[in-house]
Order: sequence, then structure tokens, then C-alpha cells
Amino acid sequence: MVSGTGVGVVETRRAVVFSGDRPLTLASGASLPEVEVAYETYGELNADRSNAVFICHALSGDAHAAGIHQGDDPNRPGWWDNIIGPGRPLDTDRLFVICANVLGGCKGTTGPASTDPATGKPYGLRFPLIQVRDLVEVHRALLRELGVERLLAAVGGSLGGMQALQWSIDYPEEVDGAAIIAASARLTAQNIAFSAVAREAIMRDPDFAGGDYYGKERRPDPGLALARMIGHITYLSEESMREKFGRRIQDAEVPRFGFDVDFQVESYLHYQGQSFVERFDANTYLYMGRVMDYFDPFEDPVYVQSQISRGETSFLVLSFDSDWRFSTEHARVMASELRGAGGTVTFQEISSPHGHDSFLFADPPEYHRTVTSFIDRLAGQRGIGSRGDA
Amino acid sequence: MVSGTGVGVVETRRAVVFSGDRPLTLASGASLPEVEVAYETYGELNADRSNAVFICHALSGDAHAAGIHQGDDPNRPGWWDNIIGPGRPLDTDRLFVICANVLGGCKGTTGPASTDPATGKPYGLRFPLIQVRDLVEVHRALLRELGVERLLAAVGGSLGGMQALQWSIDYPEEVDGAAIIAASARLTAQNIAFSAVAREAIMRDPDFAGGDYYGKERRPDPGLALARMIGHITYLSEESMREKFGRRIQDAEVPRFGFDVDFQVESYLHYQGQSFVERFDANTYLYMGRVMDYFDPFEDPVYVQSQISRGETSFLVLSFDSDWRFSTEHARVMASELRGAGGTVTFQEISSPHGHDSFLFADPPEYHRTVTSFIDRLAGQRGIGSRGDA
Repeated sequence: MVSGTGVGVVETRRAVVFSGDRPLTLASGASLPEVEVAYETYGELNADRSNAVFICHALSGDAHAAGIHQGDDPNRPGWWDNIIGPGRPLDTDRLFVICANVLGGCKGTTGPASTDPATGKPYGLRFPLIQVRDLVEVHRALLRELGVERLLAAVGGSLGGMQALQWSIDYPEEVDGAAIIAASARLTAQNIAFSAVAREAIMRDPDFAGGDYYGKERRPDPGLALARMIGHITYLSEESMREKFGRRIQDAEVPRFGFDVDFQVESYLHYQGQSFVERFDANTYLYMGRVMDYFDPFEDPVYVQSQISRGETSFLVLSFDSDWRFSTEHARVMASELRGAGGTVTFQEISSPHGHDSFLFADPPEYHRTVTSFIDRLAGQRGIGSRGDA
Repeated sequence: MVSGTGVGVVETRRAVVFSGDRPLTLASGASLPEVEVAYETYGELNADRSNAVFICHALSGDAHAAGIHQGDDPNRPGWWDNIIGPGRPLDTDRLFVICANVLGGCKGTTGPASTDPATGKPYGLRFPLIQVRDLVEVHRALLRELGVERLLAAVGGSLGGMQALQWSIDYPEEVDGAAIIAASARLTAQNIAFSAVAREAIMRDPDFAGGDYYGKERRPDPGLALARMIGHITYLSEESMREKFGRRIQDAEVPRFGFDVDFQVESYLHYQGQSFVERFDANTYLYMGRVMDYFDPFEDPVYVQSQISRGETSFLVLSFDSDWRFSTEHARVMASELRGAGGTVTFQEISSPHGHDSFLFADPPEYHRTVTSFIDRLAGQRGIGSRGDA
């Protein structure tokens, strides 16, 4: 499936999508006076404006989904490069693919680290609490800037899948197809428990300073690293951890017997935690955690039914058998609820060893094949033409 | 099974089991000049000295397994009261039951908070790293003090099961039966990962002070609370969390949408973390974590075979189907390894909703029934007589 060099050199652009006399009103009723969005696009919008695919990213993602930035290592492309590009499932020879950093993010879109125009200082925890719905509104506003009124597909894994789901519920007339991968329509008590522990790790860090650590000498890095380590345990399957690390000792044959990192799995988690703090903001982690905890799109079934039963959106719900964060059970319940509301749903569980992170992998081939066939069908319905004759 | 008031009022006693010219030499080669042990006993040692049962406790346990201390709330007996007492599975009308706090503990037995005779100050992290083997040696020394040379059974859940296993491998001639419940002979990468995160939570706490926080104004309570919260997630099953808490909001009908505790499951974890720091020492948590991480009793199969194949110990290996910390797979592997080494093993998986914590519950009845029948068989072999005619 992967062919050639993908989309090549790309750049992240920015657009102010709410400002001045047009602030963003949030689902909670609060408002944000100005919202800027960081985004990337790959491929070209066709004359019909019918070939747009929006990539919704997960908790720690960003707008840089494919290709490389000028000067970057060509072997380290964007986070979902294996699915985007000429001849790939999201085929940029015929599709116009957009990815944007979410509202509340820390990769160029307005979030807690941004300057609050009212005070001239970073928002910190004064940034309003946001919901998946609000992330969708910001992306819709970006699409209007880009001249796109309708999506061929909204595609996302994990929190990205939650966005694709909410988008299709709130604006079914704007989404031909929603590919909801390794996601959940409702966190379980166990999911919320993990989220709570990660939040405590950050908020109890003495350098958290109530969220006002920007510009200070010390940030809540230990707390954020710990939160990330906890997250990582839930992203990998027990099986993949066993295969990758087992009980092997790092750089040695025999245990050193001590409190320092000794086992390989400890070293791996430690590295994941440390490298994360260099690229992520603790406040954004808190906001995204709460975005997921409170997500409950089927809360008002009458509303959902009235939206979904119009039949404007086709759904692809994908799960991975080794994902214990958002297991197949989550996906199956979501598929049932969508069908119950009158939706057309393709549900598939893919066998993959990679746990929750499976959505980021190109293997097993069945995964990308399923996405490709879903996208191809949507493209066919819009007369976009098949692969190779875009 | 539970009848009457159990063993009634009990007290914790102490015995110095190593001191002076008889220090404890650890498996690592290091030594401890003095070891004191906190213990309790229930029932009477018979004339044959053949009716002793040793209870090995888990990570956060202590010597107070049954009954109540003078002045205590009768509704809050020792941690395993439901299995110990007249007419209970460990029937004190005919058995002499002993429970002791482990070496490295913080409930009366010598541990990191104890005074190092060499310096006159608490050991802190200068306490030597210990192994399951060392915990067993200290308990054996206590038994000698009590005039017990042989156990009818060593019984324990989780880390307690690991001790019962190690005891039977190292001294099969001293253990008629080992009941190894909700335990593992070898932590998986995922187990070690959780342990690593808990350790980091404690050691990164700024008040940890390299383990020398004793007598200071601030202790690493936030770090220890966090470690306990992480642990608790792994002690409950996803199903029991769903049933107990679901997505319910604490003390309210609708979410408050904020970063404070909002969901019931958050409130529960928070409470567990807070109450734990009042009764537990962070250094002990670190030592016990490492005791489990490094546990690998089958590392030398030739040794294990030569010990087990003598056939002196009968094994009961019990697992619970909802335990995902030490799942049935752990128990099954352990049972196979024991059988492979020539051991006589009864293996049983019990269906229970309580996750890893199932070993502390009296239900489902099949659990205690299985333990009872194992103990009764051992007692019969020693001519201890059946229930009711002790």
C-alpha cells in the first residue's frame, strides 16, 4: 500500500477562525474571543469541493500528520504518514486531506498556553473547559476558511474517533462518512480512573503552580512524565509488552537489584515520559483528559436519533482485539447505538498485537484495506473516480 | 461458614528473632544486625506441634489478620478475619494460626523506618534490598521462637502467595501444604510497568528526600497516594468498577465540569490514596514493589526440581477469573511449573467479580470451600481431626 515518498515536504499553516465580533461560543456557554488554528493540507481540493477528508488527531497528536517539514529527517514523517499520500488509503492523488491541531492543544492552535487577550497573560487553567463538540466547531470554522462545506470523510483514532463521531451526530449533512477507529462513545469507570491518576500526577506536582508555570524556571515535568507513563501502559497490550520487553534487563544480563531503572520496560516508560515533556504542555494534557472523561454523545438519544436517522453519514467503526483501553466492547456498543439511531454502520474488529496504538500502525494489512475500501466507496458515490485515474 | 464472633480480642506481640552474634544474612549476601518481628497468633499449638498455619500477607497487609484489638470497632476486624476463626476455613478450634508483618514492613517488623544500629538513625534507602526469600527466613525464625518446626500450611494471597511458594521451594520438609492465591511466580512486563510508575510517583515527590523524610515536617504523601491509586486500579476488575461506580457523579446528578473530583470512581481512588498515607510508609512501598519485581523462584529449575520432587508439600493454586493483575494465566503457568518439577498440585480458577482483591472476600462460597477442603485434607493426614471435634 505504501508507495514512493508520500506527500513530501509540507508546512504547518495558521488561520484565525474566530475573532473580533465573531468569538467562539462553547457548548458550555462560555466564549473565547479569538481562536487560531494550526493546520496542514495534502493533495488538492477538486472543482466540486467534494474530495475533502479531515483527520482528527488523538490526545498527543498535532497538525503534522503526513510528509516532512523542510530540513526534517525524511525517516521521521508526520504521525499518520503511513495512511496519507499518493496511493495510500487516504490517496492524495485524488483526495484533499486536512489535519489541524485541536482547540485546547499546544501545537499551534489556541489553548491554555495562549495569551488571554483580557489579561495579556497565558490562560493557564482560566482557559474554559471544552468538549469534543467545541473541537469540532473549530475544525468546521477552519474548513469554511478553506472553502470546504462538506467532508467526504472525517477520520480519526482514539480521541480523533470521538471527534469524527460527534461531528457526524451534530452535522450529518456535512459528513459523507465517519471512520471511527479505536475509540469509545463513553469512557468506563476504569478509563476515568486512569485519567484521574494522570491528572493528579500533574496537579500535585509542586511546579504545577495552579497551571501558571509558563515562563517560570520550572515546569511540572515530573508530573507530566508520570501521566504519560501511566497512559503508555494503557496504549500497549500486555502481549506486546511481553514480546517487546518481557522481563529483560536493560543493558545487562543480570538484574542490578536496586531502585533505578533496571528492566527494559522501565527504561522504555522512562524514555516515553521524558521525551513527552519536551514536546507537550501539561495543561493541554489536563484539558484533553477531561474532554474524554465527559464525552457522552448519546446522552440525548432523541436528538441523536433525529440527526442520524436522516442517513446522510455512513459509519465505519473499527476496533483492535488487543486494545484494552477502548476495547472491542466499546466499539460494539457504539456501533449498536448508531444502528439503533438509524445509522448505516460497518463494524469490524481487526486482530492486531499493538494494543490501543494499533491505529497508528500500517499492519496488519487488513486494517488499511478496510479503511481503503470504506473511503473508495464514499469516493465512488461522489464520482471522484478510482485510484490511479484521479 | 462465618460463625460467631471470630477470634475475639487479640494483640500484636513482638519478638527479636535476629540480633547480636546472630545477624540475618540476606539472600543478596548483605546482613541486618537486628530483626524484630510483629506477629499475632490465634488458636493453640497442639501437643504434636502439627497444627500451625502461617498467613503470609500482601503488599499493604500487617500482622493483624483476625479479631480486634482492645477498644477497636468490632465491625472492623483484622484484614483476613473472614477466613480465620472458630468454624471458619482456618478453624482456630483446631489450628494454631500465625500472622506476622514482613521484613521491610512498616507495621512493627524491622524495615526502612527502623533505626539502623550503626548510625542511630532510620535506615531509609540504606536498608538493604530484600527478596521474598528473606521474608521467609524471618518468618521461619519467628516460628522457631514459637516452638514450631513445621507448618501444616503456608497460606497467602498476592505477595503472600509468593512467600508461600518460595517457602515450599526452599524448605519443602517444613510445609505440608501451600495455598497460593491470586499470585504469580513471575511478574509480566505490564506488572513491572505499573510497579515502575508507582515507584516514580514516590521517588519524584520532592518531599521524598532520597528516603530520608522521617521526622521531617513533610513526607512524600502525594507520591505515595498516587502510587496507591495506580495500584488500586489494578486491584479491581473493570467489571466491578463499572458496577460500583459506572460514570456516576459524586454527590450530584449532573457533572460539574471541572478538574476537581467529579466522578464517583475519582472520589473512591482519591479516598484510597489519602487514607493509605495515614497508615503506610513510602519506603516500605518501594521495597515491597522491588521484592515482587525481582521475584523469580523458578529461575534455577534444577534446584526447584530437586526440592519439589521430594513430594513433601501439596500445593493449592487458586486464581480468580476477574483478576487482571495476576490473571489465571499466571496461576496456570505456576501450576505447570510446579507439576513439571514433580509437585502435587490442585489448580482451580474461581469465578468472582472482585478482581485481584477477590482473595480478601468471603464470596463466592466456592473460594472458601476450596481452601477449607485443602486444609481439611492436610489436617486429616496429620490426624488433627475434623471440624467440631478438635
